[in-house]
Formats: sequence, structure tokens, C-alpha cells
Amino acid sequence: MNISPLYLDSIIKYALNEDLGLAGDVTSQAVIPVDKTMKAQFVARENGIICGLEIARAVFKILDPNLVFNTNIKDGNNITPKQVLAEVSGNARSILAGERVALNFLGHLSGIATTTAEYAKRIAHTKARVTCTRKTTPNLRAFEKYAVKIGGGSNHRYNLDSAILIKDNHIAAAGGVTQVLNAAQAYAGHLLPIEIEVDNLAQMQEALNAGAKIILLDNMSVDMLLEAVKLNKAAAILEASGGVNISTIQAIAETKVDYISVGKLTTQVKQLDIGLDI
Amino acid sequence: MNISPLYLDSIIKYALNEDLGLAGDVTSQAVIPVDKTMKAQFVARENGIICGLEIARAVFKILDPNLVFNTNIKDGNNITPKQVLAEVSGNARSILAGERVALNFLGHLSGIATTTAEYAKRIAHTKARVTCTRKTTPNLRAFEKYAVKIGGGSNHRYNLDSAILIKDNHIAAAGGVTQVLNAAQAYAGHLLPIEIEVDNLAQMQEALNAGAKIILLDNMSVDMLLEAVKLNKAAAILEASGGVNISTIQAIAETKVDYISVGKLTTQVKQLDIGLDI
Amino acid sequence: MNISPLYLDSIIKYALNEDLGLAGDVTSQAVIPVDKTMKAQFVARENGIICGLEIARAVFKILDPNLVFNTNIKDGNNITPKQVLAEVSGNARSILAGERVALNFLGHLSGIATTTAEYAKRIAHTKARVTCTRKTTPNLRAFEKYAVKIGGGSNHRYNLDSAILIKDNHIAAAGGVTQVLNAAQAYAGHLLPIEIEVDNLAQMQEALNAGAKIILLDNMSVDMLLEAVKLNKAAAILEASGGVNISTIQAIAETKVDYISVGKLTTQVKQLDIGLDI
Amino acid sequence: MNISPLYLDSIIKYALNEDLGLAGDVTSQAVIPVDKTMKAQFVARENGIICGLEIARAVFKILDPNLVFNTNIKDGNNITPKQVLAEVSGNARSILAGERVALNFLGHLSGIATTTAEYAKRIAHTKARVTCTRKTTPNLRAFEKYAVKIGGGSNHRYNLDSAILIKDNHIAAAGGVTQVLNAAQAYAGHLLPIEIEVDNLAQMQEALNAGAKIILLDNMSVDMLLEAVKLNKAAAILEASGGVNISTIQAIAETKVDYISVGKLTTQVKQLDIGLDI
Amino acid sequence: MNISPLYLDSIIKYALNEDLGLAGDVTSQAVIPVDKTMKAQFVARENGIICGLEIARAVFKILDPNLVFNTNIKDGNNITPKQVLAEVSGNARSILAGERVALNFLGHLSGIATTTAEYAKRIAHTKARVTCTRKTTPNLRAFEKYAVKIGGGSNHRYNLDSAILIKDNHIAAAGGVTQVLNAAQAYAGHLLPIEIEVDNLAQMQEALNAGAKIILLDNMSVDMLLEAVKLNKAAAILEASGGVNISTIQAIAETKVDYISVGKLTTQVKQLDIGLDI
Amino acid sequence: MNISPLYLDSIIKYALNEDLGLAGDVTSQAVIPVDKTMKAQFVARENGIICGLEIARAVFKILDPNLVFNTNIKDGNNITPKQVLAEVSGNARSILAGERVALNFLGHLSGIATTTAEYAKRIAHTKARVTCTRKTTPNLRAFEKYAVKIGGGSNHRYNLDSAILIKDNHIAAAGGVTQVLNAAQAYAGHLLPIEIEVDNLAQMQEALNAGAKIILLDNMSVDMLLEAVKLNKAAAILEASGGVNISTIQAIAETKVDYISVGKLTTQVKQLDIGLDI
Repeated sequence: MNISPLYLDSIIKYALNEDLGLAGDVTSQAVIPVDKTMKAQFVARENGIICGLEIARAVFKILDPNLVFNTNIKDGNNITPKQVLAEVSGNARSILAGERVALNFLGHLSGIATTTAEYAKRIAHTKARVTCTRKTTPNLRAFEKYAVKIGGGSNHRYNLDSAILIKDNHIAAAGGVTQVLNAAQAYAGHLLPIEIEVDNLAQMQEALNAGAKIILLDNMSVDMLLEAVKLNKAAAILEASGGVNISTIQAIAETKVDYISVGKLTTQVKQLDIGLDI
Repeated sequence: MNISPLYLDSIIKYALNEDLGLAGDVTSQAVIPVDKTMKAQFVARENGIICGLEIARAVFKILDPNLVFNTNIKDGNNITPKQVLAEVSGNARSILAGERVALNFLGHLSGIATTTAEYAKRIAHTKARVTCTRKTTPNLRAFEKYAVKIGGGSNHRYNLDSAILIKDNHIAAAGGVTQVLNAAQAYAGHLLPIEIEVDNLAQMQEALNAGAKIILLDNMSVDMLLEAVKLNKAAAILEASGGVNISTIQAIAETKVDYISVGKLTTQVKQLDIGLDI
Repeated sequence: MNISPLYLDSIIKYALNEDLGLAGDVTSQAVIPVDKTMKAQFVARENGIICGLEIARAVFKILDPNLVFNTNIKDGNNITPKQVLAEVSGNARSILAGERVALNFLGHLSGIATTTAEYAKRIAHTKARVTCTRKTTPNLRAFEKYAVKIGGGSNHRYNLDSAILIKDNHIAAAGGVTQVLNAAQAYAGHLLPIEIEVDNLAQMQEALNAGAKIILLDNMSVDMLLEAVKLNKAAAILEASGGVNISTIQAIAETKVDYISVGKLTTQVKQLDIGLDI
Repeated sequence: MNISPLYLDSIIKYALNEDLGLAGDVTSQAVIPVDKTMKAQFVARENGIICGLEIARAVFKILDPNLVFNTNIKDGNNITPKQVLAEVSGNARSILAGERVALNFLGHLSGIATTTAEYAKRIAHTKARVTCTRKTTPNLRAFEKYAVKIGGGSNHRYNLDSAILIKDNHIAAAGGVTQVLNAAQAYAGHLLPIEIEVDNLAQMQEALNAGAKIILLDNMSVDMLLEAVKLNKAAAILEASGGVNISTIQAIAETKVDYISVGKLTTQVKQLDIGLDI
Repeated sequence: MNISPLYLDSIIKYALNEDLGLAGDVTSQAVIPVDKTMKAQFVARENGIICGLEIARAVFKILDPNLVFNTNIKDGNNITPKQVLAEVSGNARSILAGERVALNFLGHLSGIATTTAEYAKRIAHTKARVTCTRKTTPNLRAFEKYAVKIGGGSNHRYNLDSAILIKDNHIAAAGGVTQVLNAAQAYAGHLLPIEIEVDNLAQMQEALNAGAKIILLDNMSVDMLLEAVKLNKAAAILEASGGVNISTIQAIAETKVDYISVGKLTTQVKQLDIGLDI
Repeated sequence: MNISPLYLDSIIKYALNEDLGLAGDVTSQAVIPVDKTMKAQFVARENGIICGLEIARAVFKILDPNLVFNTNIKDGNNITPKQVLAEVSGNARSILAGERVALNFLGHLSGIATTTAEYAKRIAHTKARVTCTRKTTPNLRAFEKYAVKIGGGSNHRYNLDSAILIKDNHIAAAGGVTQVLNAAQAYAGHLLPIEIEVDNLAQMQEALNAGAKIILLDNMSVDMLLEAVKLNKAAAILEASGGVNISTIQAIAETKVDYISVGKLTTQVKQLDIGLDI
């Protein structure tokens, strides 16, 4: 799982605090005997790719280390309606207290993985890979990038400090493509990647001349992408970007660009429907 | 804004930390002069309801108290493509550092407000109100409930400690509807609301007999809802719930239930497309 | 325990940090062998109601998971001088490091539970219940509300977001009782309770007319309370409030109000005397 | 104020979060116009010593930097019923949101300062000073020690790492008074004070022989204290401790001990009654 | 400054809390009038490169927003003994409370910048750049990397998630250089750099064949480095590493490697001597 | 270990978060099988005093409770090149994720312990003890003080609230040595130590007359220290301070001062070279 275990722990605790408030699950306190035990099953309600099983496990473990969480599938597996995904057993109050948080993570991440897989499938016959953006839900960046990977996608930069991504404003501020790339290379050292966004082939050529290794082709038509690939002569890694959707991705991939970034992977999340049956 | 100012501050800081990492926006550090200033405009790319302007303002204020953020619209206003929503000016590095986080909040919350408004419009001729659920994105509960309210919806309980919501497991554990309501009333005091979920009219009648004040009618057909409303004789507040969508909500509302809860308001979020033009 | 397990954990850790500082218990480090073990007993020094046993257990568990904490009584039990309440055994340095924090919680909460029980006893022959207020010790709200419940009291709202409580300023700002209730009902939805404070019977009648479900009768004499109950005709839940003490609560309860809120439960805390004998 | 400004800030934020929850003050949101301003006065309802004015100021400043808080008295001043203590003006919602937290701090700390002053007055004709203990309310240690100082008392050690305090268990573990003092002196260095608790004069003599500089005389009668003072010959600082109350402190002080520690200063807190009038 | 402003803020607050404890600067509270103001000057006591001025400014701003901090030099400037580096004026207690923390940051970071500059000077006639490692002081990673940059060095990866760095264990686990690079490339996407450490030229050749773009030459003699550079034919970026010191760096740089990583930049920190004169 | 277990835990978690970022150790995720186990040994690369073994253990335990960490030496032991210091076994990804943080703590603290031991050895024939200062690395205060103790040194005050230390500014502000000591004694109570720094014998005499118990002799020559010791007549504890180094400490100690504080113990840290062999 490409999520730090400590970060995972802190985000889950934050989410549990959000749901438990000061007093915790007052319904269970009122009507469920303190020592009652139960067994509950996570069950799929629709087709998709499961993602977040270990997160659900962590939710219950944080709430009550004595709960037992078992599953015989793994993140990335295809699931079908009525399939039992996992089982949690132990103290009834603890299970009910964690149910909604676990389901919210599972549904959200499985939704992203499922969508990503649909995009990935359309371009499986090409060398291109679908990748996410930084248009993620606040405070779920790492989780959503993990789901994209589980769905068969690739990850864009995690955040503002993990790569230099030069856009039009940066080019303008620096005085041109060559100047901005020089400045970035002087700054970067050997382990900070530099990507530059270009709008047209002239810019692209200038970027190649200035030693660009990764180029983002912004909002280009399929025809222009084809020319860009030709111009590139395999010199740089090429990423196509801008308004890509499930209908347009195949043609873009067939231009032989390397990566296609799709904001919709994380801006139009449809939770996968999963329930907890008791 | 029904979000605590301290909670707002902590969630935004968390989100900024997520995006800035240890080193911050290395691209700007590399290529934008440290004292350069700029002016940027938030511009709508599609129709919808704006939500999150004060959150965007707070993002920039936390990053750099010297940034100036102006807007002449308010959350809840209808917006149209190309409309300028707000303007932020000041240090260029600061603005670019906050751009994505501000947009992610704005797009996500405006998406929820816009969807909620569509549901609310379908039932505007009835007394029913559309309401959210606890199926929210982890760590955005308060933000999403705010967006639902801005879109014209009503809020369900915030979390597990703000109301007792009795479901089938609770009824089973307590030994029946009457028993569970007695237990809940004994526990609750005068300021903790009690709602009970019922599957059929017999359960509903038993709940009414036991003094239920708020009843959730789970997964009932329109016909059964009509009977439930008749049976109720205005004794309890009635909430319809279960798989409601934009096509079915009108008929449900016309049964004269009081509230209709719709998980999709927050489980199928389509970010509203907003950009920052510089 | 109506305290969220995660909130409990964070407050105890905060309290342990307060007492341990950077260097921890320097006395034990100086003079107690690092591997020495001991057994210690929590012993009552006076009569009262015990409250906080699971909190004491958590204090020791957080400090050192290998400590063993045993008790054969439960929160809410009556205790008498010299009674052994619980026993903790294991590493001596760990036990001594947690002793004071555990005792401070136990003494404080048992003090509140004991006082609450005294109030509850005076009104046990009536239907009224004694309830706490928001006049609690900063950062112990949930703990003190738990102690009130253990002592036989009922809980008022937990905080500013768990119920609407309309006071004189709100009425003035809204332009009157009817207006303020309309505004509150429009805002609230079905799961946010609304209580309104009234000073006289005219206000009360207006509140009833406007659909008030929960009314706080502020600083009323017993005679006026009797009239209020009569006027109410069981329409609303009635809470009497204002300067109530152990001498006056019985007469108030006998007016047949439903709840009597007593600030002194948490503003005049007399810790119950409990010691740790080694 | 002997409270770190950063620690002060964090405890107040914790307390505000406790009271505001996720959604903040829903009552004001429902019924107070967002731009309404007001002026409110803190007014004494009984005689006492005021303590916590700067804390109240900080509460409002954290909530809303635009609120104006004025006072012309200072912590430690005597106050009388109906006296205006301070005035806060600005946005009405902000003032109402902070009112209860500010009052809870003010009432609690003024209560401690007032009680401490009563103890201090009884012994003002002696050289003895009344001092607090570590029997404080969890997470208010620094605040309560400040209130004790404002009331004219002196502070005992802040926590387990600020002084070595040797009790009977430590003596037993080390094998005797001489041994324990040797161990403590070897550990301590020149800036970690060492105090030893003794139960009788033989122990005291042994402690003096071993170089003790600060001796706690535990649960001794006035007669035994007199002998201890004689035995001491001004060699060590003497602290009397154990069950001291307002009736017994004068006789104890007149034995010429240097400090008298009184747990009740913080274990029997009676909040001073202060209100906010609008 | 390649440190996130929010991260900077949190680390400084942590450091101030460490130094202020619960009660703050008790010396000033005891003997400095609460309203006394002062002016103090940061003065160099030895030659070096200044680093941390904006951090010192932030220390004082966090403690007391009314302090005024002025400087007319910038991080990276050479400083000489007795030179006034900056001036802070305002409330005396606030200045004294922040003095030590500000000096500890300034001395530590200026020490690193100064040492880095010495290394950089030895290789200024070559294209090689000196770079830091992850052997940094816990919780000062970003600060130390910033100081290295100010001293004229380049930054290695920030942490375990910002680049793939393949070492001998990884090669062994994957079954060989080719296999490990294939696995890494499959995992990485286009914005996660991959560097591989090799011990000999055979490994290097295999890495080049497998498409390695960044190669770390571990513990190689100058002769072997010369051969490695020849073998490379400018295909990959080359980093020399292992026991480099101020005497050996020049010869290594003259082999025409691109980067030379030096753990000693951060493992042998000699604080630059700076004082605060009042 | 004179570090609070909760503080230890929080600092280690902070350091692990710093190194793991959002995504954790991406190298291991890419190329090490998820279930692979390994055994690794901490091995000394040079002579010194080991310090930090329990901290290294805690690093691994926090990352993965299933890792097994064994050692048969203890902090304070002398170590020699190639000596195996400890062994950690279990999941390979977990071990590799914690390796650098564990080594950074071990190297840093062992470096301080080793240096301290060298100073301590020079003065072992005297009664003087070498002590640290507050010139520590930000956020490692408690850790570095622990290392000083392990190296045979003594600890100065932990922070600004653990002792009053009067310097020249304080004397000036209070109007003289006598005045400042009177003010400090009035403030302090019996458990807050007071030390005063003097520059000459006249000041020292005045301090002794005013009852000073601990005196810091600032930047005095050996001859002046000899006079100071004579003047003192064993009345106060004497600390020599100011620019002390390994060459000058012996002569200073032989003047019969009690403590010698050495900033260089923590301002010129040379990490001890320790590696992890797999």
C-alpha cells in the first residue's frame, strides 16, 4: 500500500473522531448490551474493483484491538454483487462504531479504483498509462492515489514538493521556455523531476532543445498529439492532459503518448455500493 | 457557515500540509521571483451553485495573511460559465501555493450544493426537504453538510453522538421496537433526539405506540409511504430513505413525508468545474 | 461510557504529558530500580459513588501496556472508607508515573457522581431528573457529563452544535419569541433539538403557540413553575433552571417539571478522597 | 502570567473545540444576523479575587481577532457584586460563541484564587506560605498554579520532571533515608531540587544528616511540627502537609514552618459566580 | 526558502514549547517588568555563511506579533565577527523568551551552510555539485536541506517517498540489477525518479543496459570513478558517494561525476557562533 | 531513560512522518515482496559510547509491532568497531522503513555521549561534573540531555520554566544583584531553583550576601575561579561557564568548582558511525 502507515493511522483517527464526537455512538450505548458480540459481513452490492480492505481493517483495529477482521480477497480484485468481501467479529458496540467510517473509505476508494480500471481497459492495447492529477479530495490525496494505482493507473506527483511542474504562468514569469527550464534545472538537483507544460509544437521544440525530459501536452487535439509524438523522437516522456474522458482516451492513447492524466478519476467519484450485513 | 471556525482552520491546514509537504511549492521557488505579485480570478466553467468562497478565502489567509481576496457573490448564488467568482491578489508564490487546495474545496463543495439544489427543486412544491446522510467523505463531514445546506437541503445528524438512530440491529438486540424505544428514552434526556427506522407498518404502529417522535421509513414503496403517512396522523416526523434518486424523489415527496434522505448527495460527487485564471 | 474511546485516549495523553513533562518521573528514575515491580491498591477514604475506573485503567495502559489493572466494582457503585476499589500491578516506575493522573480523574469524577446522586435522591419520588449544564471544567466536558450520568443525572446538550438553545439575547435579536422559533425551526431540520428559555408565562404561552417542544423556565419561583406546568398541558418538555441547590430541588421537582438543571454539579466540585496504597 | 503563551493558546483552542464541535454555535447561526454587533459586560455576582482576565481576552481573540476586549482591573484584584470586570464588543456571533468558555475559565480560576487568598490571610502574620499540590484538575495544571499564585499562594513542583520528591515508597525501595538521598543527589545535578517526605523526627534527623535541603513533614501534629522546627535549626526548608484546612492552617503556620501545602486549593474548587450581561 | 510555511510554523512551535514548558520563562516573570521594552542585536562571533534569518524572524513573530525584527542581509551572505546580523525590538520578556530557540536554529543552520560552502568551494572549478543525504537530525530534515542549498549544495531526496533509491538489499531481493530496475520502472510512473546504487562496473553496465537514468557509485576509488564516467558515455547522471570528506572531494569531482553526496554535511554539524547582545 | 515515554513516542512519530511522507518507502514497495522477512544487525564502525538503543527499539515498534529487536548491551556501554550492537528481525519492508530514523537517533545521541565521556574523563579526579546547556538542537532537548547523562555528564535546567537563571540583563532590569535576588526569591517558592550569573568577585560577594545558593561564574580565568572558590567558603554551588573546551576543562575543574557547563557538548555534535548490516 503506497500510504505511510503513520499517515494512514492519523487520517483514520481523524475520521473516527469526526464520526464519534465527544460522546461516541450513543445509540449503541443506549440499546446494545456492553458485552454483546456480533459478526458482520462486508457485502458487495454492485460490480467493481475492491479497494481499501486494509484501511477497513485498520479502522476496526484502532477502535478496538480485539476485533477480528478476515478477508480472503485483496485490493484490486474484481467483485460482484452479493459477494462477501470481508468479515469482522467481536464486540458489537465496537463494530457498529466503526461501520460507517470503514464503509465510507471502502466505497470511496473502490469507486475510484473501479473508474480507473475502466479507463485503463480502454488503453490496455497501447503503451500509454492513465494517471491521476492533484485534483483530489482534500485530506485524501494519498488514499486516492493508492486507489488509482489499484485500479491500474499510474500516479502523478503527490504534491507541490515532489516534482517541478512548469505551467504557462511560470514560463511567463521566467521570460520564456528556455529560461524557465534553465532556472528549474539549476534549482532541482538530480532527484527532483522537472515536467513542463506546452500548448503548441513551437513551445515543445524549444523545451526539447533546452533539455526537457518530461513534457505535458496541454489540451491538444489528437492530430496535434500525433505531431508532437513525431517531433519528440522518443527524447522526452510525453503526457497528454486536458478534458480527457472515457470516450476520448483511446484515441489519445493511440497517438503513442506515454501518460494521459485524467482529473475525473478523482473529481467525479461515484462510491461503489458496499454494505455491512449483520 | 455551519462549520466551527477552529475546525475549519484545522482541516484547511491539514489539506495545505498534504499539498505542500516539507519543502513547499518547489516550482515557484525555482522560477518565480520571491517578490513577484499577481492577480488571479476564480472563474466558473459551468453552471451551478457556488459553495466554499469563505473556505477559499481562509486557504489564502492561512498561507499568507497579506493576500487580498475579494468577491461580490455569496455561497448559494447561481453561477454561469465565464463568470468571475472571486479575485485574489498579492504575492505570486503564495497564490500559486494555495491555488489547488482552494480549487479542490470549491469544486467539491459547489458540486454537492449544485446536486442538492437539483433534488430540492424537484420537491419544492411539497413540504418535504431533502437531507444528507452520514455517507460522507472521510474528514469532510462538516464541509459537505454545509454544502448540502447551501444547496437548499437539510442536515441529518452530524455524527454518532448527536442523535440516537435506531436500526434493525438495535431493535433485535433490545428485543423489539417497544423495548428499544424505552431503552433509548431512558438514556437520552431532553436534548438528544431519537429516530427509529422501521421496515413496515406494523413496526411503525408499534413505534408510534411507544412514543416515537421521529420515524425513518426504510426502503418503502410510494404506496407504502402513503399508508405510513396516513397511519402517522401527524404524530411523528417522517423521513423516507433508501435508494432515492433524482427520478424518484418527486413521487416520494408527494406522499407528504417530511424528510427524504439521499446518500447520493455525498456519495456521487461531481466537482463543479472552476478554474483560476491569472 | 458515553465518552468516545479516541477522545478519551487523547485527553488522557494530554494529561499525562502535562504531568510527565520532557523528562518524566525523575524521582523514580533516581531511586527506584528500573525493573522493580509492585502492587498498589486504590482505596476509598470516604463514602461516595465511584466514577472513573475505566479511565484509571486507561491511564496505566497508555503508560505501560504490561501493567495489570483489576477491579471487581463498577462505576456507579457506592463505596465506603477503606474499601479496596481496584488494584494495579507491574513495573513500579510505571505505576508511580501514572498514580497522580489516575487519582485526579477518579477523585474529580467520583466527586461529581457523588454530588449528582445526592441531588437525584432528593427528587427520586418525582418524575423530574436532575441535569448538568455547559458550566463544566474546560477540556473535561465529556468526562463530567459521564460522571453526571453515573450519579443518576441526565445530560444537557454537549456543546454549541448539538442543540439550539434560545435565550433572551436571541429572542431580542430575532424580534420576538414567535420570530425566533420560526427562524430556528427553519434552520434546524429533524435532528437538531430546539429549546427556548422563557422568563414568564406570557413568553411561555407564545412559545407554545409557536410550536416549542422544549421550554426552559428560567429563574421561576415554585409558584410560577406550578402555573407553567398547568399552562403547558403536557405539550412541551419543561426544564427548570437558575440557582437550584440541594435545598430547593425537591420543591421544584414536585411542581412536575421534567428536568432541573443544576450548574453546581460541575461548578462546585469536591473531589472524592481516594488514595493509592502500596 | 506563569503560563507559556503557546501552551495557553493550545489549551484554549482545545476548550473551544470542545464547545464548538464540528458545526459551531448553531443557535446563533439560526437566529442572529451574521453581521450583528453587540457589547457585553463581564459582571461579578459575588465577592472574590478575579483571575483569568487575560485568558478570557485570549478566548475571544482566538475566535475572532476583531473583537475588542477591555478591562481596567487586573488579576488579583478584589471584586464585588455588580462590579463590571471587563467589556467585550464586536460581532455578536463571535461573542456568544466564546461566552461560556471564557466564563468557565474565569469562574474556575477566580474560585481558586479566592480560596487561596482566604488561606493566605489566615497566615499573613507568619512567614509561612500556602502552596498547592499536584492534585489538580487534569489539563489545567498550569492554569490552576497560576490562580494559586494570584491568590497569594506559592507553587509546588509543576510536574514529575521539575523536582525530586521522595516519599515512603521511594525510601523503602532505596533501603533507607540516607540511601535514598544519596541516590537522589547523585542523580540530580545542581538545578533539580530534592525534597524528602518524613513521618517522624528520627527520619527527619537522618535526612538532615544526609544533607536534605527541603523536608516535607507529613501529617504531623502541631506539637510534632514545633519539635521539627526546633530540630531543624534552620538547616532545611520545611513544608507541612496532610489534611490541612482553613481551620487548622493558622496553628500550623505559627509553628514556623516555611510552607504549608493544601490539596483542597484545587480539589474543592467552588467557581466564583461571574456572568456576561448583554 | 524550500521549507513549507506551515511546516516551518509547526516545527518552530514545537521547539518553543520544548523550551517554554508549561510556565514559560520564569526568570523574566520574576525579575523583568511586564511592560519593559528592549532592543537586541544578533551579532556574529566568527566567520561563516548566515542561514536561518527568516526562521529567527518567525520565532519572534510566533511568540509575540508585536516584536519588530529587522535585517539588511540575507541567508547565504558571508558574515564576519562582530557583524550585526539582525535586530529585534519590543517587549523584553518576549525577546528573552525566544532568544535561545532563535539562536539554536541560526547557529545550527549557519554551521551547515558554512560547512557546505567549504565543500562547494573545493569543487567550484568542476561541474560536480555537493549534495546532502538522509543522514539528518531527526525533525530538522527540511531545515538542514535548506541550509545545504544556502551553502551552495544540492539536495538529495527529501524522504522515502520522494524517490526510489535501489541499494544492494533491494537488488538481492529482486534477483538482480535488471530485475530490480524493471520492477522499479513498472512501479514508478513518470514523476518518481529512480536511482540505483552500484558497487562495480559490471553492475553499472547492467544498470545502463536496463535503462538506468541515475546511478550512485558507492565507495569507489578515484580510478574506478574515472572508469565509470568513461563507461557511462553521458547516459546517466552519476553520483559518487561513501566516506567523502573535505580532503577527498576535489579529486572525486575532477573525475567528472555529476553529484557527490557527503553525509558529514549533516552528521558533523558545528554550530556557527552567534550571540544576542542587548 | 530521563525522557517521558509519551514525549519519546511523539518525537519518534514526528521523525518517522518526516521520513515516510504520504506514500512511505516507495523503494521497498516497488521491489521488496510484501511478506519478505529479514534480519539486520546494528554494527559499530568506530569506538565510542552507545546511546539510544531503546529509542531505536521504539522506532521499530511504532512502525511494526511485530518486529523483534534484541540487544545484549545497554546505553552507556563502550563499543568498538565491528561490534554487533543489536539485531532487528521481521518484515523486510518495515525494517527498511525504520532503518534511517533509527540510525540517525543512534548516531546523534551516541556522538553526544561519546564526547561527554571524553570531557568527563578529563575531570574524573576532581569533584566537578561536566554539564550541558540549553544550546541544544531544536526538538531534541530531552534526547540530548539524556545522552549527556549517559556519557557521564550532568544536566543543566531543561527549559525556561524549570529554574530561574539570572543573567546580566536581568540584573540590570532589576537594578542590581541584591534586588534581582530578592525579586527571584519572592517569586520562586521552595521548588524552583535560582542560579545567578556573575562576572566578577564583587558581584559574587553581593550575591552571597543576598543568599544566593547557586552561582554561575561566567567567563572567568582559572585564577579568578580559584579566588571565587575561596570567597565562596562552600556557601553556594559554583558553576563555571564560558568557552570551555576539552583542553581547558581540567584546569577549571581543579579550581574545585562544582559544575562546568560546556555548550560544545551539543553544539558540535559529531555523529558516531553506526551501520545496519543485512
